[in-house]
Amino acid sequence: MMMNALVLQSDFGLEDGAVSAMKGVAHNVSKVISIYDNTHDIPPFDIWAGSYRLLQTVAYWPKGTVFVSVVDPGVGSARKSLVVQTNNDQYIVTPDNGTLTHIYKKIGIKQIREIDEEVNRLPQSGASHTFHGRDIYAYTGARLAAGALSFADIGQELKAEEIVCLPYYEPKLEEGSITGTIDILDVRFGNLWTNISRELFLELGVDYGETVEIEIVYDSRSIYHNKMTFGRSFASIHIGEPVLYVNSLDNMAVAINQGSFAKAYNIGTGTNWKIYIKKIN
Amino acid sequence: MMMNALVLQSDFGLEDGAVSAMKGVAHNVSKVISIYDNTHDIPPFDIWAGSYRLLQTVAYWPKGTVFVSVVDPGVGSARKSLVVQTNNDQYIVTPDNGTLTHIYKKIGIKQIREIDEEVNRLPQSGASHTFHGRDIYAYTGARLAAGALSFADIGQELKAEEIVCLPYYEPKLEEGSITGTIDILDVRFGNLWTNISRELFLELGVDYGETVEIEIVYDSRSIYHNKMTFGRSFASIHIGEPVLYVNSLDNMAVAINQGSFAKAYNIGTGTNWKIYIKKIN
Amino acid sequence: MMMNALVLQSDFGLEDGAVSAMKGVAHNVSKVISIYDNTHDIPPFDIWAGSYRLLQTVAYWPKGTVFVSVVDPGVGSARKSLVVQTNNDQYIVTPDNGTLTHIYKKIGIKQIREIDEEVNRLPQSGASHTFHGRDIYAYTGARLAAGALSFADIGQELKAEEIVCLPYYEPKLEEGSITGTIDILDVRFGNLWTNISRELFLELGVDYGETVEIEIVYDSRSIYHNKMTFGRSFASIHIGEPVLYVNSLDNMAVAINQGSFAKAYNIGTGTNWKIYIKKIN
Repeated sequence: MMMNALVLQSDFGLEDGAVSAMKGVAHNVSKVISIYDNTHDIPPFDIWAGSYRLLQTVAYWPKGTVFVSVVDPGVGSARKSLVVQTNNDQYIVTPDNGTLTHIYKKIGIKQIREIDEEVNRLPQSGASHTFHGRDIYAYTGARLAAGALSFADIGQELKAEEIVCLPYYEPKLEEGSITGTIDILDVRFGNLWTNISRELFLELGVDYGETVEIEIVYDSRSIYHNKMTFGRSFASIHIGEPVLYVNSLDNMAVAINQGSFAKAYNIGTGTNWKIYIKKIN
Repeated sequence: MMMNALVLQSDFGLEDGAVSAMKGVAHNVSKVISIYDNTHDIPPFDIWAGSYRLLQTVAYWPKGTVFVSVVDPGVGSARKSLVVQTNNDQYIVTPDNGTLTHIYKKIGIKQIREIDEEVNRLPQSGASHTFHGRDIYAYTGARLAAGALSFADIGQELKAEEIVCLPYYEPKLEEGSITGTIDILDVRFGNLWTNISRELFLELGVDYGETVEIEIVYDSRSIYHNKMTFGRSFASIHIGEPVLYVNSLDNMAVAINQGSFAKAYNIGTGTNWKIYIKKIN
Repeated sequence: MMMNALVLQSDFGLEDGAVSAMKGVAHNVSKVISIYDNTHDIPPFDIWAGSYRLLQTVAYWPKGTVFVSVVDPGVGSARKSLVVQTNNDQYIVTPDNGTLTHIYKKIGIKQIREIDEEVNRLPQSGASHTFHGRDIYAYTGARLAAGALSFADIGQELKAEEIVCLPYYEPKLEEGSITGTIDILDVRFGNLWTNISRELFLELGVDYGETVEIEIVYDSRSIYHNKMTFGRSFASIHIGEPVLYVNSLDNMAVAINQGSFAKAYNIGTGTNWKIYIKKIN
């Protein structure tokens, strides 16, 4: 029997027993299953961040890996519970609330099934309606990873177009300027990660060491407007200098070497945060 | 040989190497033992929270699981070191300082043994007297989980009544009003978790969607006094509204949907924090 | 085939997907390898702390364990990538930036090899130059732990004297007074951990319960100067009292029982923070 890794993500934090309860449920399903954490520090209710952190990591795990993502402000409502098979043959177990946005746009979804919660629910867990992460998602994800449940037995099939997606802005190149959004922060270091791919950026014809013009706009207000170097890494600039670089997901990112760009200019994330990159001739 | 999971809990945090040292000791005992974390973010020296986090999670782990809980302000004193077998045939390794309060009251203890620290101690660890979590508890817990040590060989048997318990207030229903205590917070979300069980609450005869009167009193000072809905989940109320609900442990809890009730009214936890629930006729 | 534990350390924090990506890479190398965390809360770019946390923990893991430590402000520069075999036959994979300082001084290094990054790099990871933790260190560490790569195949051998070491101050006893440095904090509890070993301290001839004189000096400014008890553990003094004790690494440490010495006197760490211990006759 094939045994796949189970990777858990949530906005629960590690301060209490919630994550442990999910792991206990999974370990009860199979004593030999490998259980890992993606992160449990998704900001509370931040579905967008949950969606992004999946995209950030799934590529580094094997085919067959089962991800459980629980950022679930609508727990107890009529929102559906899903398991999707991605185009890379990994599985994601999650409420249908937008958590799959980035996976859907950037990787693609092969098949979706709605979890039949009558069948796929931790025995004797019927009375609580506030912790589906433990009672439904961890339980179902562990059974799927352990081979105790087949994808076909999860519930009825849905069409990919039926799932909830958050608004998503495609980056574009027009008249020598690329427009994108600041998708997320590299939290610990305060770097800005955009949705502009290296490939799209390279169409500007900028080489390492050349200078670009960067503008950051929130709604229609300009928050930052200045020049900086396109660097191969932080090592190519001085401490305290800003740099445009290719991040670990092959997207364009902005940083201050050993400082926090996000704190320095009070920059946030989401589709309201636009970034413009322009070549200087 | 049966191999059981080892689940570690402490107030050490994850910022330094303390938890890693405990895991290294356990991994040295057995390279195939499964090691998990309950939480290591118990507030420093908060024995009550340690006791509660055990109660919150043990039910989701299999029989035979060995829990190690180290919140140990009295390390190096004459306080005993214990291993208890619960009524559900799980094991808890911990200093005798009140950490077993909730387990003793709500699950029950089948047998207790005092760890003979001369025998059950990491070899060559005699000179340090400040890290029994590593030298005695993780070591003994791992040997027990791995089957390298039998329960009988831990040390002499004690009577359950001999262990240290923290003051514990039993909730009660009198004249249409239930009195309980606020045991702990759902930290990340600021929800209040009481010690009032769903079963006791249902004796009030309140249905989903009906309104109850809630009062919260610290010592004898009223901190909050208002009406709120008894909801099936957060989804049954608007964002920003308060709600009384059944939490994931089948106890009554109070929240503000997508807000922090604890921060909004500056509410703390412990037996000095009383909560009254009354049906409105 | 022998399979050794892989223990990861970084300054990445657990808030995003970086650590998960490293674990995914390692799990992809071997589905049965055991992956643990040392800590990922090394303060950003704090190489000294990374070096110390290795010393704090390696002794508790088995021979053959592979540690990966990524505190890497120079990622993308010409700094080398190393794997060292310690005198205790454990392996450490890390950038050559001073992370090995404490291991080199206190345990010793048997052999060093520079990672040939052309060969030992995650396939298809060539375009990003900012996450060697994932693409080189986790990948190489996992292959070494899993036995898929031999130490000899890592790259060319270097001499131990060639590695980068941070300034390190050896403690000394002169005229009845010991001088050392405050190496690090027991962060959660605010205790000061010095580099003065129990053995050196015992040459002063102080017994448990006796009083010593402690002075703490930053640069040449006296920050703290007072008497305190040499205690066997925190239990030997009252709550709120300062104490000199032997910490869990067999070095001398200073604490306030159930308080934070570091916060109380605003004490930091590093070789500029000197501590003097004197016997009182």
